[in-house]
Amino acid sequence: MPSRPGVTLSARLADIAAALGGELRGDGERLVERIGPLEAATPDTISFLSQPRLKHLLQSTTAGAVIVRAEAAEAALARGAVAIVVPDPYLAFARLTRWWAARTRPAPGPGVHPSAYVAPGAQVHPSASIGPMAVIEAHAVIGEHVAVGAHAVVGEGAELGEGTQLRARATFGFGCRIGARGIVHSGAVIGADGFGFAPCEGRWEKIEQLGAVWIGDDVEIGANTCVDRGALDDTLIEDGVKLDNLIQIAHNVHIGAHTAMAGCVGVAGSARIGKHCTFGGAAMILGHLQIADHVHISAASVVMSSITKPGQYSGVFPIDENANWEKNAATLRQLHTLRARLRALEKKSST
Amino acid sequence: MPSRPGVTLSARLADIAAALGGELRGDGERLVERIGPLEAATPDTISFLSQPRLKHLLQSTTAGAVIVRAEAAEAALARGAVAIVVPDPYLAFARLTRWWAARTRPAPGPGVHPSAYVAPGAQVHPSASIGPMAVIEAHAVIGEHVAVGAHAVVGEGAELGEGTQLRARATFGFGCRIGARGIVHSGAVIGADGFGFAPCEGRWEKIEQLGAVWIGDDVEIGANTCVDRGALDDTLIEDGVKLDNLIQIAHNVHIGAHTAMAGCVGVAGSARIGKHCTFGGAAMILGHLQIADHVHISAASVVMSSITKPGQYSGVFPIDENANWEKNAATLRQLHTLRARLRALEKKSST
Amino acid sequence: MPSRPGVTLSARLADIAAALGGELRGDGERLVERIGPLEAATPDTISFLSQPRLKHLLQSTTAGAVIVRAEAAEAALARGAVAIVVPDPYLAFARLTRWWAARTRPAPGPGVHPSAYVAPGAQVHPSASIGPMAVIEAHAVIGEHVAVGAHAVVGEGAELGEGTQLRARATFGFGCRIGARGIVHSGAVIGADGFGFAPCEGRWEKIEQLGAVWIGDDVEIGANTCVDRGALDDTLIEDGVKLDNLIQIAHNVHIGAHTAMAGCVGVAGSARIGKHCTFGGAAMILGHLQIADHVHISAASVVMSSITKPGQYSGVFPIDENANWEKNAATLRQLHTLRARLRALEKKSST
Repeated sequence: MPSRPGVTLSARLADIAAALGGELRGDGERLVERIGPLEAATPDTISFLSQPRLKHLLQSTTAGAVIVRAEAAEAALARGAVAIVVPDPYLAFARLTRWWAARTRPAPGPGVHPSAYVAPGAQVHPSASIGPMAVIEAHAVIGEHVAVGAHAVVGEGAELGEGTQLRARATFGFGCRIGARGIVHSGAVIGADGFGFAPCEGRWEKIEQLGAVWIGDDVEIGANTCVDRGALDDTLIEDGVKLDNLIQIAHNVHIGAHTAMAGCVGVAGSARIGKHCTFGGAAMILGHLQIADHVHISAASVVMSSITKPGQYSGVFPIDENANWEKNAATLRQLHTLRARLRALEKKSST
Repeated sequence: MPSRPGVTLSARLADIAAALGGELRGDGERLVERIGPLEAATPDTISFLSQPRLKHLLQSTTAGAVIVRAEAAEAALARGAVAIVVPDPYLAFARLTRWWAARTRPAPGPGVHPSAYVAPGAQVHPSASIGPMAVIEAHAVIGEHVAVGAHAVVGEGAELGEGTQLRARATFGFGCRIGARGIVHSGAVIGADGFGFAPCEGRWEKIEQLGAVWIGDDVEIGANTCVDRGALDDTLIEDGVKLDNLIQIAHNVHIGAHTAMAGCVGVAGSARIGKHCTFGGAAMILGHLQIADHVHISAASVVMSSITKPGQYSGVFPIDENANWEKNAATLRQLHTLRARLRALEKKSST
Repeated sequence: MPSRPGVTLSARLADIAAALGGELRGDGERLVERIGPLEAATPDTISFLSQPRLKHLLQSTTAGAVIVRAEAAEAALARGAVAIVVPDPYLAFARLTRWWAARTRPAPGPGVHPSAYVAPGAQVHPSASIGPMAVIEAHAVIGEHVAVGAHAVVGEGAELGEGTQLRARATFGFGCRIGARGIVHSGAVIGADGFGFAPCEGRWEKIEQLGAVWIGDDVEIGANTCVDRGALDDTLIEDGVKLDNLIQIAHNVHIGAHTAMAGCVGVAGSARIGKHCTFGGAAMILGHLQIADHVHISAASVVMSSITKPGQYSGVFPIDENANWEKNAATLRQLHTLRARLRALEKKSST
């Protein structure tokens, strides 16, 4: 097996504690070589305990170090592990992964790969990295420390803000805009035409989509996810939104800041979604409706009208052994007649 | 902010009225610079009123011009707007967007970009445009005024009819064919293998997919949508079909003319779908069934058997606050036993 | 219409029978030019009968040859067809399609296309084929007889085993690995970041995904399907797994050998799926659950908790005419109150 360059690292626990702003208890000179869960940890693993209800896992771990809240430090030390004490171990773990990745996955250096094509009139900041075979069309603006991966396409007049990454084979359409520190994963398509047609004698006449896509700062967009350009105005994605893979965002949708959507979600045209919402995988949101801030939609649930009150909402047919499902589904098709029959019985019974 | 070249336009209302074949009432020399909805219109905006029930919006609009039916012209004029009178304002709006786009988004000129690769034996019409890094394989036939975007791939022997556009990073498989005036959006994959395997002692043996994909005229295929090649014969998409993003069309499906499907729809193998149907987002159609002409399937509904009668069909679990849903879903798993209990009561009550 | 090079073939039935290991009954010198279903067969067609219940189709076929079980040979001969007798006609048909494809779709020759980019330090076996504009990053390992299509991207340190095909515009991420004889279709993205974030004061902090994707032998991955890299360990896909198009496999999922998933399926993070399972189109599997071997999930069904017993499971709202659905869906939202009312009646009735 070939070496995977840069994937291994021997990290001093004192350095990690310093980077996380945590209190080190134990030998700071000790080295760890991987991050891993408590259950499968080896002495060269640094692990973390975020949920107090899992505290029993500490009692049998062989991790070399554990990131813990103060109240769990003793239990870690008792197992011979070094403890790094922080107020929020899960958040510290997230930060550790970034610290780790920065050391094991060096970013590509600045410059335009000789096989890339940068059209005349495009502005590429000298600190930006443009990968092999990437295409930057005319008048595009590529900001400081932007990384454009192999085979990515940036359309005419599009703008990528500081530090944003277009991964290999992402497509960023003409006239669209993304702010700072964004990530657009491979295969994502930003700025395809919204789906708009006028009926005319049994045929469909295309409505050209004259808007674009406007994306704020710190937005992540998953692999093969699509965000369509607006019909007249722009489709809007505010700061901090996180979209997983294979999501469809139709034209003129507006997604509020820090909302997150899991894979396979679909949002139909002109839906207006609040801030700090979450959507489980494959949730579907119909068009021209509004969803308030702090609404949470369960996986595979379908939002058919506006939701004005924060909370968790669900709507999924429960799975069952096939034979049971068949009987229940058949009955469901007569449910309103069952209600009528029940009402009739109640009436009879009350007389 | 950099200029987005070509996005702005100052258009004379007389020119617009002439292009739409509408009757101009008011000052034809007046200029508009954008198309927009009545609610947010400014004096340099041209808007439209298509639904009579929204006529009240005219009373407060500040649009410079409004496309209206004859009966609404006076109300527009009373607001100081120019009226352009047509029989179908929504259709006129669609045409206006195309007129507008033709002036603000100039098509790429003819010719093969120096960074593209055209294999020996491919036929590219001199009026066609082949974008940066596009790949045209051997024996492909690229018709008049075809536009192939950056990074698009046209497989061996594939054919693109007159005026068809493959947007950046679309993939059009070997031996597949699309007619005139089509649009295939970024990331779409036409002609991947259908999903066919024969079971053999617990493993799957691949069935090579020997057919192709045949697509008629005036077909639009959305971003990251997949249309698989047929197992033996071709997968067929008739004239005027419109497919949104992230749709899966399996092998040997046949979609009738002028049928439209919203995003995230899935159609399983060998389904045969009629003409003039519509499918809401994330509708799923199982395989080997038939759907008549003029059938309309609501979003997120699952078609499990053939539908022979035109009409609107739905099947979605209603969304609810999570606690209510949990109680109802639990009860649903015993629904057929509830029916039996109801029946027993009815029997008892009738004696 | 242009010739599609290589698509036609005149095949001797004796050669086909020999290739399939079948018993030839009739004239082995006869030629066939296509494979087709019994119903639409012409004298130059070879067809097959796999399901005994369709035996009546033999009585009217005009196929030149039919692949049959022994008991159906006479019926084929009686129609003037040549019979090729095998124990499993469907499996023989699958093998015939591969034999046919090998003759009509010649594989690309070995070598690196001049327009491709192979980074220094990548290892490309001399028998491998690298297509136009493909990108092979540093330290990638491309095995014997691997075929990398046009515009495909192989990330740093990734490995492709013997005979594996990356079709045009597939993306295979850094550090990921696929075994022998795999197929990754166009637009598939292997190794994008898993969707992991830690909440922090209303915002999301990225958890870098430090794992990769590990794929066994004989795995097929459909067009525009995504398989995310693991958070700490690898996402695992065992030997013989078949994934259709537009499927989402989240980080740390483990899919057992020879499991097959139809289009649009979604599997959430850390789900552990057994061997020899099947999933109908658009089935959704929530995260952190386990599914036993030999479980079969119907199309569009949602798995919300672990399944420990083999069998067929379903959960889909039955589709209905819209008016009926509306009444039933409205009633469903009060279903648990209906149950309570029924109980009350039963109590009253039993007193």
